[in-house]
Amino acid sequence: MTTANLWDKGGTLDPRVRAFTVGDDWLLDRALLPWDIAGSAAHARMLGRIGVLDASEVAALVAELRSMHEAARAGEFTVTEADEDGHTAIEARLTARLGALGRKVHLGRSRNDQVALALRLLARDAALDLSARLGMFAEAMFAFVDRHGDVALPGHTHLQAAMPSTFALWGQAWIEAALESMRALAHLHGELNRCPLGAAAGFGSPVPLDRGAVALALGFSAPQRSVVDVIHSRARLEGRLLHEIAVVGATLEKFACDLSLYLTREFGYLRMDPAFRTGSSIMPQKQNPDVVELLRARVARLRARHEEHTWVSAKLPSNYHRDQQLLKAPLLRGIDEAREALDMATLLPAHLFPQEPILLAAMTTDLDAAREASERALEGVPFRDAYRETAAAAPAPGQSRGVPPHVADDARSELSQSRGECTRLRAWTLETRLTLAARLEEALGPMPLP
Amino acid sequence: MTTANLWDKGGTLDPRVRAFTVGDDWLLDRALLPWDIAGSAAHARMLGRIGVLDASEVAALVAELRSMHEAARAGEFTVTEADEDGHTAIEARLTARLGALGRKVHLGRSRNDQVALALRLLARDAALDLSARLGMFAEAMFAFVDRHGDVALPGHTHLQAAMPSTFALWGQAWIEAALESMRALAHLHGELNRCPLGAAAGFGSPVPLDRGAVALALGFSAPQRSVVDVIHSRARLEGRLLHEIAVVGATLEKFACDLSLYLTREFGYLRMDPAFRTGSSIMPQKQNPDVVELLRARVARLRARHEEHTWVSAKLPSNYHRDQQLLKAPLLRGIDEAREALDMATLLPAHLFPQEPILLAAMTTDLDAAREASERALEGVPFRDAYRETAAAAPAPGQSRGVPPHVADDARSELSQSRGECTRLRAWTLETRLTLAARLEEALGPMPLP
Amino acid sequence: MTTANLWDKGGTLDPRVRAFTVGDDWLLDRALLPWDIAGSAAHARMLGRIGVLDASEVAALVAELRSMHEAARAGEFTVTEADEDGHTAIEARLTARLGALGRKVHLGRSRNDQVALALRLLARDAALDLSARLGMFAEAMFAFVDRHGDVALPGHTHLQAAMPSTFALWGQAWIEAALESMRALAHLHGELNRCPLGAAAGFGSPVPLDRGAVALALGFSAPQRSVVDVIHSRARLEGRLLHEIAVVGATLEKFACDLSLYLTREFGYLRMDPAFRTGSSIMPQKQNPDVVELLRARVARLRARHEEHTWVSAKLPSNYHRDQQLLKAPLLRGIDEAREALDMATLLPAHLFPQEPILLAAMTTDLDAAREASERALEGVPFRDAYRETAAAAPAPGQSRGVPPHVADDARSELSQSRGECTRLRAWTLETRLTLAARLEEALGPMPLP
Amino acid sequence: MTTANLWDKGGTLDPRVRAFTVGDDWLLDRALLPWDIAGSAAHARMLGRIGVLDASEVAALVAELRSMHEAARAGEFTVTEADEDGHTAIEARLTARLGALGRKVHLGRSRNDQVALALRLLARDAALDLSARLGMFAEAMFAFVDRHGDVALPGHTHLQAAMPSTFALWGQAWIEAALESMRALAHLHGELNRCPLGAAAGFGSPVPLDRGAVALALGFSAPQRSVVDVIHSRARLEGRLLHEIAVVGATLEKFACDLSLYLTREFGYLRMDPAFRTGSSIMPQKQNPDVVELLRARVARLRARHEEHTWVSAKLPSNYHRDQQLLKAPLLRGIDEAREALDMATLLPAHLFPQEPILLAAMTTDLDAAREASERALEGVPFRDAYRETAAAAPAPGQSRGVPPHVADDARSELSQSRGECTRLRAWTLETRLTLAARLEEALGPMPLP
Repeated sequence: MTTANLWDKGGTLDPRVRAFTVGDDWLLDRALLPWDIAGSAAHARMLGRIGVLDASEVAALVAELRSMHEAARAGEFTVTEADEDGHTAIEARLTARLGALGRKVHLGRSRNDQVALALRLLARDAALDLSARLGMFAEAMFAFVDRHGDVALPGHTHLQAAMPSTFALWGQAWIEAALESMRALAHLHGELNRCPLGAAAGFGSPVPLDRGAVALALGFSAPQRSVVDVIHSRARLEGRLLHEIAVVGATLEKFACDLSLYLTREFGYLRMDPAFRTGSSIMPQKQNPDVVELLRARVARLRARHEEHTWVSAKLPSNYHRDQQLLKAPLLRGIDEAREALDMATLLPAHLFPQEPILLAAMTTDLDAAREASERALEGVPFRDAYRETAAAAPAPGQSRGVPPHVADDARSELSQSRGECTRLRAWTLETRLTLAARLEEALGPMPLP
Repeated sequence: MTTANLWDKGGTLDPRVRAFTVGDDWLLDRALLPWDIAGSAAHARMLGRIGVLDASEVAALVAELRSMHEAARAGEFTVTEADEDGHTAIEARLTARLGALGRKVHLGRSRNDQVALALRLLARDAALDLSARLGMFAEAMFAFVDRHGDVALPGHTHLQAAMPSTFALWGQAWIEAALESMRALAHLHGELNRCPLGAAAGFGSPVPLDRGAVALALGFSAPQRSVVDVIHSRARLEGRLLHEIAVVGATLEKFACDLSLYLTREFGYLRMDPAFRTGSSIMPQKQNPDVVELLRARVARLRARHEEHTWVSAKLPSNYHRDQQLLKAPLLRGIDEAREALDMATLLPAHLFPQEPILLAAMTTDLDAAREASERALEGVPFRDAYRETAAAAPAPGQSRGVPPHVADDARSELSQSRGECTRLRAWTLETRLTLAARLEEALGPMPLP
Repeated sequence: MTTANLWDKGGTLDPRVRAFTVGDDWLLDRALLPWDIAGSAAHARMLGRIGVLDASEVAALVAELRSMHEAARAGEFTVTEADEDGHTAIEARLTARLGALGRKVHLGRSRNDQVALALRLLARDAALDLSARLGMFAEAMFAFVDRHGDVALPGHTHLQAAMPSTFALWGQAWIEAALESMRALAHLHGELNRCPLGAAAGFGSPVPLDRGAVALALGFSAPQRSVVDVIHSRARLEGRLLHEIAVVGATLEKFACDLSLYLTREFGYLRMDPAFRTGSSIMPQKQNPDVVELLRARVARLRARHEEHTWVSAKLPSNYHRDQQLLKAPLLRGIDEAREALDMATLLPAHLFPQEPILLAAMTTDLDAAREASERALEGVPFRDAYRETAAAAPAPGQSRGVPPHVADDARSELSQSRGECTRLRAWTLETRLTLAARLEEALGPMPLP
Repeated sequence: MTTANLWDKGGTLDPRVRAFTVGDDWLLDRALLPWDIAGSAAHARMLGRIGVLDASEVAALVAELRSMHEAARAGEFTVTEADEDGHTAIEARLTARLGALGRKVHLGRSRNDQVALALRLLARDAALDLSARLGMFAEAMFAFVDRHGDVALPGHTHLQAAMPSTFALWGQAWIEAALESMRALAHLHGELNRCPLGAAAGFGSPVPLDRGAVALALGFSAPQRSVVDVIHSRARLEGRLLHEIAVVGATLEKFACDLSLYLTREFGYLRMDPAFRTGSSIMPQKQNPDVVELLRARVARLRARHEEHTWVSAKLPSNYHRDQQLLKAPLLRGIDEAREALDMATLLPAHLFPQEPILLAAMTTDLDAAREASERALEGVPFRDAYRETAAAAPAPGQSRGVPPHVADDARSELSQSRGECTRLRAWTLETRLTLAARLEEALGPMPLP
C-alpha cells in the first residue's frame, strides 16, 4: 500500500504514472531525510514563535522530530517506495504519532521550499566536507614532498623531456590546485549559507512567517531575499558546486595521467606498492595500475554529473517544474563520488616510490640547453642569438646539472607559505562545520526556557 | 569473504583499492550475466570443436552453464560484492561444481573479450528491443491520429500562431521520427552483429581458436576482423547506440514540450486524463502534468548518459584500459531509461484529448495570410508584391478557412505509406530477435548428435 | 613570406604542418596583443631592475613597446598569418626596430608563460567587465520594476497557474541572479589576480628573475606560487570564468523562455515594441520575437564554449601540451558572446509592456486556494484538513484577491537591499578596473626617475 | 544600406536588434549559396511544370540563377552584412536583374524550407566527401602497413607491456574504424537523400507544388513525407552527421594519443620526420610533435561542435524557432574541421618510422606468459592452474618469441578483406557523388527540349 499523497484530493492516479513520477526519488530522499527533519523542527519552532502553534504543540512536534532524526540516523526510519518522497514520509509519521498535530506542520510551507531547504543544508555541508578532504589530500602531498621532494625529475613539455625538475615542484602543483578549490568552496559556502524557507511555491507564503528566525536557527547568515529566486537559485548553486567538483576532478585526472605514464615500464619513474596493483585473467605476468585508471575514469563521471544537472535545469521558464526532481541524482552522486575519488587520491602518495637510478639516468645534459642559452645571454649575447648558438652546439653527453638553486629555494619557500594557508583553511572549515552542526543540534533539542 | 580473483597469484590487494576498483561493477554485471553465460557455452563448444576439450567435457560444461543460465534468470544465481565481477562469479561456480574442468573454460580468452562479447550480445538485443518499442510508440500515435487527426490545430512558428494545421500533421511528425530511428537501429544492428570473441587481450589469442564457429553459434554475421579494434570498437558502437537513444529522446522531449504548452490554461489545446495528473502539497486547486515534465527531464538524463560514456572513453591510447569498466553504467542505465521513457510516451496519446471549441476559436483568419498572398500570386501578381498587399490589407476578422484540401490529402497518403513502413520494420525486428534468441537457446542446449 | 619562428634552428617545417599548427591562432592573438605588449614592457623593466638590461636598453624597449601598443590599439600593428603567433610578431618588430636589443627581450621567459600572462591579464579584465555589464542589466531590471512592479501576474508552477504574483517579484529574481554572479566574479577576480610570469616552460626560469616586482608592476596581488601550476591553473581559472558565464547565460535563458511564452497570443502577458520584432518571408501577418529566441540560442552556445574548453584541457598529463592553443578560441569567443548577450538582455526590459487587462483577467480566484487553506489553518484547522476542505469547495468564480500585503512589503524591502548591494558591487568593480588600467599605463609609461 | 528584408512591411527594426539577429549568419550563408541557388533553379522549373510560371519565365530565372551560381563559385557574388541572409541576397539579385519576375520565385516556399533544402544538399554532399577522405586515410594506413606491418610492437594493456603485437595489427585497427564510419555515412546519406522542399513554414505550401518533381530534379530518392518533420528532422540528421564526425574524431584522437606516447624519448617506438616537428622559444634542444597534439585537440573541438548543435536544438516545442539559425555554425565548422583533421591524419603515416632496435629490445619474454600458460593448458593442465604455474615461474630473461604465426596469418587475410571493402566503398562514394553533381548541373542547365 502506498502512503496517501500530500496532495491527495480523492482522485486516482494511474499506477504507471505514479511509478514513472516517483522513479527512484524515494531512494535519493534517504540522504535528505536528516536535513529535512532538522528543517522541519526549525519550521515548527518558528510557527510557535509567530503564535500559530502553542508551546506544547511545538514541544511535541520537536520531540517527535528529534526521535525521527535519531531513527533516521540509525536506519530505523527511512523512505520506502510506498511513500511518494521523504516529505510525505515525515508528515505521515508525524500524523501517525501525533494525530491532528502532525497535519499542522506543513502550514505556510510547500514541498518546493522544503526540498530547497533540505538540499541547501546538504550542499552547504558538502562544500565544507569536500574542502576538509581537499585539505587531507594536500597534507598527503606535503608528506610525499617531505619524503621525496629533492629527487630530480625530468620536466616534460609536449611529453618531450624539457628541463630539470624535482618531485617537490611536481607535488607543489597538486597542493596549489587543492588550495584554490578550498578557497572556491569557501566562497560557495557563503552563497549557500542563505535560507530558502518561506518561498512556499515560489511566490511567498500566504502565512506571515518569520523568515529571519528560521534562518538564524539553522545557522544561515540570512533568509534568501527573492522568493522567486529561491526556486531559480537551486540549479545555479548546485551547478556551481558540481562544477567545482569537476575542477577538483580535473586535478585528480591530471595526477592520474602522470601516474599512468610514470608507472609504465618505458618511463619507470615511479613504482607503486604491489598491494595497490591488480592482475590480468589471461596474462600471468601482469601487475596493473587499475586504481589509477579508475581514478581517471571517475573524473569523467564527475564531469558527466555536472552536465546531467545542467541538461535537466536548462531551458525552463521561471518558477518550479517537476524536471527539478531529476537534479537530485547527479548532485547526490556527484558529491559521494567526489569524496571517494579524493579519498583514493589521498591514499596514493604514500604508496608511490620514485625510482632514483632511472630518474638520474633520465636527467641528461640536453635538459640544460635553456640554461646554457640564458647563461650566454646573461654574458651579453642577445638571447635569440644565444639560443641559436646553443642549438647549433652539440651538447656534451652526460648528466644534467639539475635544478638551479634559486628555483629550488623558491619552491621551498613557496611550499612553506602553502603549508600555512592550508592550515588556516582547514581550521576555518572545521570550525565552521562544528558551529553549524551545533546549531542544527539545538534546533532539534529541547525547547529553550522562556 | 571474497571470491578468489581470476588473476590471483598469491599477493594481497589493499582492501580500499579492491573496493575502489570493484565499485558497483558486480551490480552492473548482473545484467550481463545471462549473456556472459551463453557466450561461455559457445566458447566451450568451440574449444571442443578444435579438440582442446573432449566431447564429455563440453557436454558437462554446457549443461552446467545451462543450469547457471536458468538460475540467473530465476534470480537464484547472481553476482555479489564478494565476486570481483560476473566473469569471476561464473568461473568460480563452474569450478565449484565441476572441479578442474571449470578451471579449463578460460583457455584462449581474456576477460577483455569476454566482457566485449557479453556487452555486444546485450547491445545487439537492445538495438532490436528499442526498435520494437519505437514501433509501439508509432502505433500509439497512428491510433491517436485515427481518432483526432481531422481536428484543426493552429500551426505555430516562433511560438506565434502561423498557419492552419491539424492533429494529423502533428502526429505524423512523431511517427516519421520514430521510423527514422528504427532504420538507424537496423543499421546499427548490422554493425553490432559481428563477434568480438577471440581478441583475448586485444592481440589475438595464443590458442588457435575457430572464431568463425563461435560467431556462427551466437548468430553473428562474422567474427570482427581486427583483434585490436575489438577493444576500440566497444566505445564506438556503444556510443552510437547511446547517441541514437539521445536522438529518440530529442523527439520525446519535443513531444513533451508541446504537451507542457498545450496543457496550460492559456493554450488549452489538449486535456489530459485526470488519472495522469498530480497535485501540489500547498495549493489545493492544482492538477499538474508532472508526467510530461519528467518525460522531458529524463531525456536530459539520456543525453548525459551519452556524454558520460564519451568522457570515459575519450583520450585514451590504443588497447584496453581499466577506464572502460565505467562505460558499463551509462550504457546499461541509458538502455533501461530509454525503455521507460518510450513506454511512457507510448502510453500518453490515448489519454490526451483535443479541446475542439478552444481550437476552433484559435483558428483565426490571420492564419490564412500566406494562402491569400499565394492566391493573389497564382493570379499573376509577383509573390513579393502580393505579400505586401496582403500585409497591408486588414484581414477580415473571423475564422480561418482551415487546412487546404491538398495538404490534408497529402498527409493522409503519406500516413498510409508510413503505416506500411512501420509494419515492415516491426516485422523485421521481431523476426530477427526471434532468430537470435533461438540461436542462443541452441548454444545453451544439448549437444547436437555427431 | 613568413616571419622566422622564434624556435627556428635552420630546419624546414612542412608547410601543411605549419598551416595546421598555426590554424587561426594568429587571428585570435590579435585580442591578446595589447596585453602581451604591456606584459613585455613589465618584463623588460624587471630585467633592468635585476641588472640584466641597462637603463637605456630598458628605456628603448619600453618606448618601442609603448608605440607598438598604440599602433595595436589603432589597428596599425596586428598579427598576420605570416607570423606564427602574436609573441613572434612582437619580438620580430622589436628586432626590426631595435636590432640586437630586440633579440634580448625574451631572456628568462618562455612563450608558455608569456601567453599565460597575456591571457591572465585579459581574463582578469573580462571578469570585471562582465561584472560591470551585469550591474547594468540589474539596473535595467530595477527600472522595469519601478515602472511595472505593481502589476499583478499569475504565478505558475509546472506551467500551470498557481498563486498570485507581481512583476516586482518576477523582476527581483533576475536581479538577485545578477548580483550572485557579480559576487562570484569578484571572487574569481581574486584568483586571477596572481602573476604567472616567471614560470618559463613550467619549471622556473634559468634566470634569477624578480617575480614580485613584475607582479607588482602589473597590479597583481602576488606572483603565482607554483611554477608547474602556472601551466595547470590556466585551464582551471579560464574554465571557472567560462562556467560563470554559462551560469549568467542560464539566467538570460530563463528570462528568454519567459518572454517567449508571455509574448505568445495564447498567454499575451507582455507586448514587445514593434521595433524589436521581425517577420516571415511567406506569412505576411507574422511579427516574431526572433531576438528573444536568439538570446536563448546564444546561451546554448555559451554552454558549448565551456564544454569545448573542458574537452581540450581534459585528460592531459602535467605540464604544457600544444593542445592548450585551442583553449583560446572558446575563451575569447565566450567572453565576447557573453557581452553581446548581456547587452541585449539589458536593452529588452525597456521595450516590454505588461498587458494589464489580460493579466487582470488571468488573476482568477483559484489562485487563492493556498491562501484560503492557510486562513482556515490559522483559525485552528490542521493544515492538511484545511487543504482537503478547500480542494472540495468549489472556488467562487471571479478575480483573485491578489498578492498578500506582507509578501508585497517584503519584496519592496528586499528590492531596496538589493539596490544597495548592486550600487556597492558596481562601485568596487569600476574602481578596481580603473586602478588596474592605471597600473598598466604606468608599465608602458616613461621610466620613473632614479 | 541594408537590403530590404523579405518580410519588410514598412516598419522599422531597431538596428541593435537587427545586428543581434543577423549575427554572422550572412558569413555562414556564403557556404550555402551555391546549394541555395541550385535549389532555387529546381523550384523555378517546378513552378513552370505546374503552370505557375510560363516557359520563358522559367528559362529567364534559370539562366539568371546559373550565372549567379557561376558568380558565387568565382567569388564575384556573395552575401554581405547588408543582406539579412543568403536567401534575401538571391531574391534581391533576381529582382534587380529580372524585375517583377524576381519577385515571383518565392511563391509556394518559405525561407524555412529553403534553408532546409540548402542544408540538406550541403550535408548530403558532406557525408559523401567525408567518406571519400576516410577512404584516403585508410589507403595511407594500408601503405604504412605494407611498409612496416611486420615490425614487432609490444602490445600494451593498462599501458603496461602485455603481449606481442605488430604494426600490422596496430594499423589494421585504424582501417577498420574508418570502414565502419564509411558504412555509417552511407546509411546517413540514405537518410539525407530525401527532399524537404514543399514544407514551407512547416505546414505545407498553400500552392499545390509537385514535390516529387523537384525531389527528382535534385537527385533525391523522394520528397520527405511529413512537412512538420521537415523542420524537426533538420536537427536530428545534422546531429547524426556531427556525431559520426565525433566518432571519426575519437579514432583520430586515439591515433594521436598513441603517437604522442610512441614519440617520447621514453617509449621511442616511432620517429617522426623532422619536417613535421616544431620547436620551443626558450629551449634550443626541443623538437616537439605539436602536430600530433593539435590533432588530438581538434577532436576535442569536434565533440564540442556536436554538443553546441545539441544544446541549440534541445528542449524546443515543435515547429520552427529562430534558435535554429545557430545550428549552422557548428555544422559548417564541424564539417570543415573534420576535413582538416582527416587530411592531416592521412598525411602522417608516411612520415612515421618504427625504430626497430628499440622495439626489438622491448619485445621481452614476459610478453610470452599468456602463451606459455596456454601451451601448458593445451597439454591438459586446466588453464587456471597453468596460469598460476606460469606466474610462479620466473620467465627466462631475453627476447619474446614474437607474434604467433596464426595471429599474423589472420591479420594478413583480414587486411586483404578490408582492402576489398575499402575499394568497394570508395567506388560507391565516388560514383554517387558524381551522379548527384550531374543532377544539380542539369537543374541549372538549359531547359530540356519539349
